[in-house]
Amino acid sequence: MTTAGEEMYALVERLYPLCRSITGDGVRATLDIVGEYVPLQTHEVPTGTQVLDWTVPQEWNIRGAHIADSAGRRVVDFAASSLHVLGYSVPVSATLPLSELRAHLHTLPDHPAWVPYRTSYYKPEWGFCLAQETLDAMPDGEYEVRIDSTLADGHLTYAEHVVPGQVPDEVIVSSHVCHPSLANDNLAGIAVAVFLARALAERTPYYTYRFIFAPGTIGAITWLARNAARVERVKHGLVLACAGDPGRLTYKQSRRGDAEIDRVLRHVLAASERPHHITEFTPYGYDERQFCSPGFDLGVGSLSRTPYSGYPEYHTSADNLDFVSPEAMADTLSVCREAFAVLDRNRHYVNLSPYGEPQLGRRGLYDALGGRSDTKQAQLAMLWVLNLSDGEHALLDVAERSGLPFDTVAAAADALHGAGLIKA
Amino acid sequence: MTTAGEEMYALVERLYPLCRSITGDGVRATLDIVGEYVPLQTHEVPTGTQVLDWTVPQEWNIRGAHIADSAGRRVVDFAASSLHVLGYSVPVSATLPLSELRAHLHTLPDHPAWVPYRTSYYKPEWGFCLAQETLDAMPDGEYEVRIDSTLADGHLTYAEHVVPGQVPDEVIVSSHVCHPSLANDNLAGIAVAVFLARALAERTPYYTYRFIFAPGTIGAITWLARNAARVERVKHGLVLACAGDPGRLTYKQSRRGDAEIDRVLRHVLAASERPHHITEFTPYGYDERQFCSPGFDLGVGSLSRTPYSGYPEYHTSADNLDFVSPEAMADTLSVCREAFAVLDRNRHYVNLSPYGEPQLGRRGLYDALGGRSDTKQAQLAMLWVLNLSDGEHALLDVAERSGLPFDTVAAAADALHGAGLIKA
Amino acid sequence: MTTAGEEMYALVERLYPLCRSITGDGVRATLDIVGEYVPLQTHEVPTGTQVLDWTVPQEWNIRGAHIADSAGRRVVDFAASSLHVLGYSVPVSATLPLSELRAHLHTLPDHPAWVPYRTSYYKPEWGFCLAQETLDAMPDGEYEVRIDSTLADGHLTYAEHVVPGQVPDEVIVSSHVCHPSLANDNLAGIAVAVFLARALAERTPYYTYRFIFAPGTIGAITWLARNAARVERVKHGLVLACAGDPGRLTYKQSRRGDAEIDRVLRHVLAASERPHHITEFTPYGYDERQFCSPGFDLGVGSLSRTPYSGYPEYHTSADNLDFVSPEAMADTLSVCREAFAVLDRNRHYVNLSPYGEPQLGRRGLYDALGGRSDTKQAQLAMLWVLNLSDGEHALLDVAERSGLPFDTVAAAADALHGAGLIKA
Repeated sequence: MTTAGEEMYALVERLYPLCRSITGDGVRATLDIVGEYVPLQTHEVPTGTQVLDWTVPQEWNIRGAHIADSAGRRVVDFAASSLHVLGYSVPVSATLPLSELRAHLHTLPDHPAWVPYRTSYYKPEWGFCLAQETLDAMPDGEYEVRIDSTLADGHLTYAEHVVPGQVPDEVIVSSHVCHPSLANDNLAGIAVAVFLARALAERTPYYTYRFIFAPGTIGAITWLARNAARVERVKHGLVLACAGDPGRLTYKQSRRGDAEIDRVLRHVLAASERPHHITEFTPYGYDERQFCSPGFDLGVGSLSRTPYSGYPEYHTSADNLDFVSPEAMADTLSVCREAFAVLDRNRHYVNLSPYGEPQLGRRGLYDALGGRSDTKQAQLAMLWVLNLSDGEHALLDVAERSGLPFDTVAAAADALHGAGLIKA
Repeated sequence: MTTAGEEMYALVERLYPLCRSITGDGVRATLDIVGEYVPLQTHEVPTGTQVLDWTVPQEWNIRGAHIADSAGRRVVDFAASSLHVLGYSVPVSATLPLSELRAHLHTLPDHPAWVPYRTSYYKPEWGFCLAQETLDAMPDGEYEVRIDSTLADGHLTYAEHVVPGQVPDEVIVSSHVCHPSLANDNLAGIAVAVFLARALAERTPYYTYRFIFAPGTIGAITWLARNAARVERVKHGLVLACAGDPGRLTYKQSRRGDAEIDRVLRHVLAASERPHHITEFTPYGYDERQFCSPGFDLGVGSLSRTPYSGYPEYHTSADNLDFVSPEAMADTLSVCREAFAVLDRNRHYVNLSPYGEPQLGRRGLYDALGGRSDTKQAQLAMLWVLNLSDGEHALLDVAERSGLPFDTVAAAADALHGAGLIKA
Repeated sequence: MTTAGEEMYALVERLYPLCRSITGDGVRATLDIVGEYVPLQTHEVPTGTQVLDWTVPQEWNIRGAHIADSAGRRVVDFAASSLHVLGYSVPVSATLPLSELRAHLHTLPDHPAWVPYRTSYYKPEWGFCLAQETLDAMPDGEYEVRIDSTLADGHLTYAEHVVPGQVPDEVIVSSHVCHPSLANDNLAGIAVAVFLARALAERTPYYTYRFIFAPGTIGAITWLARNAARVERVKHGLVLACAGDPGRLTYKQSRRGDAEIDRVLRHVLAASERPHHITEFTPYGYDERQFCSPGFDLGVGSLSRTPYSGYPEYHTSADNLDFVSPEAMADTLSVCREAFAVLDRNRHYVNLSPYGEPQLGRRGLYDALGGRSDTKQAQLAMLWVLNLSDGEHALLDVAERSGLPFDTVAAAADALHGAGLIKA
């Protein structure tokens, strides 16, 4: 039997070699594979389309690239890793001395064995990323450089998968799909999103859950520009990124800081007794930057393990298949499921019998034998729900004020609702 | 000379043997004795009366009960303790083997010498409460059981005592009178309420203080149902229970958490430097459950020593006359008196000379000699009262922000009021 | 080259010998000297003028005073220190035994070498202040006492200096000028105010800064009474006192506690990493008492080193030229300058492109090379300003939430404003 963790890891392995960017066939190939797991609606947005303050750029595709020494030996080859080419490199075919080539080479002197990840989306440029060790071993002399890329009018590609709910109000789950061969950032996020979608579909959730697989920044901006009317319906959201590394979970709160999604994640992480971090919103990181821009100010938080830029392997070749694990992804998935289970049931009820306690005993909801000091949690939960169901408090408030598990509180609400004592 | 503590203890001693329940002659006998200390208005509410979501039950009375062994020896006898019979037991007269009798016997295996207190108000049932030791000593065989009780249409009885104040706004003080031979829960609470009423009457208080002596839950619900119009006038309230045990004082805040009574009790307990606990509201405990139900949401807190269910003797025969003391009751009474002294004087004043400081010196309120660094507390208090008398702050706010004793602040307000500088 | 600290100290030295009080020629002489540094508008308010709840008192002037023993030796002489005479002493010329004289003598038994500072502004009285040692050395016998003072209709004198700003909204800086030969209280405060005014004038500030040099209490009350219409325009203010002693800086917050001046001083003191204290408002101390009376409730805080009454030298002859230092005054000045630099630039901006992030790259505000983890502070600051520029947050909020230096945030706002992305 294969666990969800192993299945997610297998998906990451399949996606890893592809060269993704903010546009191009690597994104399409990625979405094709994701589409084998959950049905996707794919959108192609033409180059030049105005999206909020931005314009959809030309589409970039690459077939190969290398640096060869004077003996014709390829010292850097895109075929070995998609990281070797500066993202969005313009085509080049030239021979030039190392002294001139250096301006186009990117290395990490502090981690001489690692290849960095670099891009130049909006300024025409070409370049190679390579290990400092490789560069150190390159003798002076002439090198042939060749980048077989095209930058031309085309499309920006993104996809959506929707799990229909009982109400049209939406929860969005967003994962960026623009990073090339980096496992944690963000193939693990994509994989957790995919398996979260499948889990939510097991029974009809309350909310409609919309999964967005789009390139970072420009993709989120494109989605927002094309969904101005839908944004009204987006009640909550979560950005998933860096979901598979060995670090503890980190929830970065929405700009509001007290959005329901913030309260849910704080509650679930605390109740789970996992080591974790809760951080304040910052306007830097992943696509929460766009969802939480002041004009939208959506209740969208971000769940990661080690967050953005917080680990040395970040944006380097060391963010590889060894850096992520089935266990870590399974853990992230588990918290997402717990959080959405709470979010989905977190109703505001109104007590229909608010003057004094209603007599629970004659409705079969309360022990007949009085005097005992060990009142059952289920009964306490009913008293709490009745007391706080004034329209101001949701069930999560009841759980937090009472110290009772959310599940117990939600079950009490179900019982009271069944007895006609509260209404949603 | 008898101290208040000793007088309260003597009252507890008189009340202790009576078999109280939520209805019946035990309640009436209790109120008769209380009526010797403070005049009471007693209310009799007929069985079947609809009170909020509840119905006044039949009245229960009991004359005797016992379990006798085959030799006719009474191994359990109501005459020895009112706790021995399950409250509201239906009458029974039968002989049956121990194996069948066991289903009707209640013990405390963890405290084998103690008799538990159990009731079955709303489900027709009969039973005995006894020490585990007693049960262990009962050989198999036939036992005669007899409960000489009646459960019939009658009345629910409760009483009120009012200390008239300068204004019709009311403070309610509620103590439950339904528990049989349990000293701390709640004869001590009743005794403290009685002596508090007497103390308040020594001079006309600002508020009208209404003392309610009623059975728990159904009594408070009955009072609320019959006083719908009065509830508007209830500005503050305190439930008194478990007022005589050796533990530290516990103030359980109202549902609002920032009601004036909450602030007053927090202040007085902190200022008194007594060890004490302040706890959040929970919809469990005593009649604050009803007063703080969301439809009423009154500013009613609860003062106990060791709170509800927080001591092993709770609802057992060990909550007896040895468990309560004159000293503990006197201490509880003292805090109640201090708290109501603050509550009663906690006015919002308005500074009639709010632009700059008024010249206190020419009104004889300020030292003429300037330059000294040891300004007197009385003068500081006047400056604080003037500065914060903007209609937003009450004297308790002034005391808390200034760190000055409430009495000093109230005296300063009196002086300023006398000089025409502030108005209530 | 002379430092500001040395220049301030030199000013304190010049002012030190003068006998100031709440009226009289000592105040005028003080303001004449201050006027050599910054131009002053001086106001003379006649005795008997009604100012709020007070009346301008008679003017007091003194030419000399002494106590001479039977041998004609002057044991106490006003010529040696202006502290020797009880402020506002009525004239006296008499010979009386020590036993009668004692009622008019003020000493500090705990500090036998020090002369206290005492006044009796509003009750006609005469007296001398002297060292306990001096008193102890005075044998019984007859003493000649002479105070050559006049108390007559005249004027109360105060002065203003204005640094014009870009807007008519005002910041007031107030220092009391009524204390005689006391260096820290308040010559140091006056000196810091003077040099702060000069520093602010180096370039046109945003706010108009009004410096008030007036006697304590009655002076501030007079200013408020005569500036009822202007008070509307006073947005912020600072009372400067005890600005030169060796203690750490203390900022006493305004009555509001969250006025912008409070937030600025808290921020600047914390950011400076100086040891310092922040204290709550109290209606005692200096003229913040008047500015923060509930009718005005201005956003006026108070900056001191060791605060009011917090050092043994307070209001004694030990508050002399040795007690203050150029370094301490320079440090106080420096914090004032930093604070007003923040206050002056603390705008609320509105993001004109609030939906998603605007594309900073095409405006030359963002690095073209992507993927690096060491994003520059300037770029982060721009993202923060954009994200929080919703009209609710000022730049100081941005600095506090981001943890970035205020200067970096303000520079980012300037860049964004220059690019037309935000408006004030």
